[in-house]
Amino acid sequence: MSERESQIVLGLDPDPMALWPGAQASTGSSPVVRAAGSVLAHCCAVIDAAGPACVAVKPQLARFEQLGASGWVALEGVVDHARAAGLLVIADGKRGDIDVTARAYARALLGSTDTPFGRAPGLEADMATVNPLMGSDALEPFVQTAREAGLGVLVLVRTSNPGAADIEDLELAGGGRVWERIAKLVDALGRDGVGDGYLSDVGAVLGATVPEHLERARELMPHAVFLLPGVGAQGGRVEDLAAAFAPGRAGGLVAASRSIASAHLATGADPADAARAEAERLRELAWGISR
Amino acid sequence: MSERESQIVLGLDPDPMALWPGAQASTGSSPVVRAAGSVLAHCCAVIDAAGPACVAVKPQLARFEQLGASGWVALEGVVDHARAAGLLVIADGKRGDIDVTARAYARALLGSTDTPFGRAPGLEADMATVNPLMGSDALEPFVQTAREAGLGVLVLVRTSNPGAADIEDLELAGGGRVWERIAKLVDALGRDGVGDGYLSDVGAVLGATVPEHLERARELMPHAVFLLPGVGAQGGRVEDLAAAFAPGRAGGLVAASRSIASAHLATGADPADAARAEAERLRELAWGISR
Repeated sequence: MSERESQIVLGLDPDPMALWPGAQASTGSSPVVRAAGSVLAHCCAVIDAAGPACVAVKPQLARFEQLGASGWVALEGVVDHARAAGLLVIADGKRGDIDVTARAYARALLGSTDTPFGRAPGLEADMATVNPLMGSDALEPFVQTAREAGLGVLVLVRTSNPGAADIEDLELAGGGRVWERIAKLVDALGRDGVGDGYLSDVGAVLGATVPEHLERARELMPHAVFLLPGVGAQGGRVEDLAAAFAPGRAGGLVAASRSIASAHLATGADPADAARAEAERLRELAWGISR
Repeated sequence: MSERESQIVLGLDPDPMALWPGAQASTGSSPVVRAAGSVLAHCCAVIDAAGPACVAVKPQLARFEQLGASGWVALEGVVDHARAAGLLVIADGKRGDIDVTARAYARALLGSTDTPFGRAPGLEADMATVNPLMGSDALEPFVQTAREAGLGVLVLVRTSNPGAADIEDLELAGGGRVWERIAKLVDALGRDGVGDGYLSDVGAVLGATVPEHLERARELMPHAVFLLPGVGAQGGRVEDLAAAFAPGRAGGLVAASRSIASAHLATGADPADAARAEAERLRELAWGISR
C-alpha cells in the first residue's frame, strides 16, 4: 500500500456480454472456450489500465464459474496476470461450509492439495472472502490455512446490498445486531493473527453503502482490515469511509468494479483511459482521507 | 422418489487421498490432471454401487474446486454419469452474493450463460444449495432461475455442524432464533412455487444432527423439501427424521456421504459392496419411517 500509495481494490466481475470492445478471443473451439478467452483478455486489459492505481484485484468467482472449466482456466490466467503486475489477489467467493469442506475451499483458493500423484496447486490467492453464517468452525480452517501461509481471510460482516437488512441487521435478544455478533467472532478469530502493523490476518467485509456502521465496526474489530465494496455502481462514496482507516492507512481496502471497468459508458471515452482515470481518482480520494 | 422408493441423497465429497483402491487414473500429464481423473473414476464407481438405492447425488463443489479447472471437468463428468444413472443432481456449493452475482452463480449451477459466441451451458444441476446470510435479494436470482426451468433451490436454515450455534441459533429481540427467521424467508420465497404435490421449489437444509428442530421447522415451512445432511459420520440418525416427512414421502431428502463411501473401512468389506449395502440400509430405514 505505501509503495503504491493506494488502497484501491480492482473488482473484476466480467459479464461476457459487456466486455471491452478489443477483448474478443478470435480462436476457440466452442462458445464457452471463446467466451472464457475473451473474459481473460478483458480482465488483463482492465488490469493493465487501472492496475497501477490499485493495490489488489478482486476477481468475482461467480463470473468465472459461469464458464465452467474454461472459466476456471481464465481465472487462473487473471491471477497470474495480476501477480505479474505486482498486485495482491483477493478471491471473492464468499465460501462457507462445515470444517472438512471449509478446509477444501481454503486449499482451493489459498493453499494446495496433496494427491497421490503430487501437490495440486490451488488458485494461490492472497486473501479470500468467506461467509460466517455456519459459525466459527466454518471459518477456522480458512484462518488456519491463511495464517500458516502468511495470507488473509475477509469475513462478511455487514454487506452492501439492500437485503443485508433481512438477516444481518436483526436485533438480538442479548442486545446488538447479528452483524455485530459476527464482528465479535471476527475479532476473536483474528486476535492470534495480529502482526507488527497492528492489523490482523482476519479482516471484515463491510459495505461502503452503510458508512454509518463503520465507527461501531471499528470499535468491535480494532485490528481488522476492512474490505469496503459498494463504491460507485452500488452508491457508496469514498468520502464517507474515513472511520475504516482509524488504525492507519492499511486499515481499509476500497473495492470498485463496475465504476472502473464501465467508466467509459458515461463519458464515451476510451475504456482503458476512462478506467485508468477513475481508478486514479478513487486512489487519490482514499489516500487523501486516510493517514 | 416413488419409482425408486428412495429419499437417499448420495453425497460425493471425494478426498484425493482417500479414493477407492481401483480408482486411480493411469494417465494424465500432471498431478492435478491425474488426481481429477481419479476423483472422477472414484465418484463414478460410488454412483454405480450406491446409486440404485438413491434418488439423487450431491457433489460437494469444494472437493472439485480444489483441483481447479481439471476438478471442474471431473465435476461435469460426475454430473453426466449421475444423470445417465437416472439420478437427480444437487450442486452443493452454498453460494450467496449480491443480486447480479447471485444470478451468475445461478446460471453457473442451474442455467446457462449467453455469450457473444453462443450459449455457454452451466453445470445444469437440478438443485443448488444457497446461503441466505445476505438476505432475500441474494436468494431471489436463484429462485427465479430455478423456477423458470422447473428446478429447485435449497436454502441453508439450520446446519449440522457445532458452529451453527454461533449465529444460526442466536435469539432475536422480537422472539425466535435467527434460523427461524431464515425459515420464514424460505417459506415466503417458496409460496409462488408450490406445485401439485404440495411441495415448493424452495427447500431448506436442516442438519440431521438436530432433529429436535424439525417439528418447528415443518411448522414454519409447510411446503419446503428438507435436505437433511449429517446422517452417519456427523452423528445424525435416520430414525429421528420423521417430522421432515409430514407433508408426505417427498418432504425429506436424507443425505449421506462418508457413511456410504467409507462404509468398507469399518468392516473390511469390498468398498462397492459396503457402499451398496449401507445405501440400501438407509433407503429402507427412511422409506419405512415415512408415508
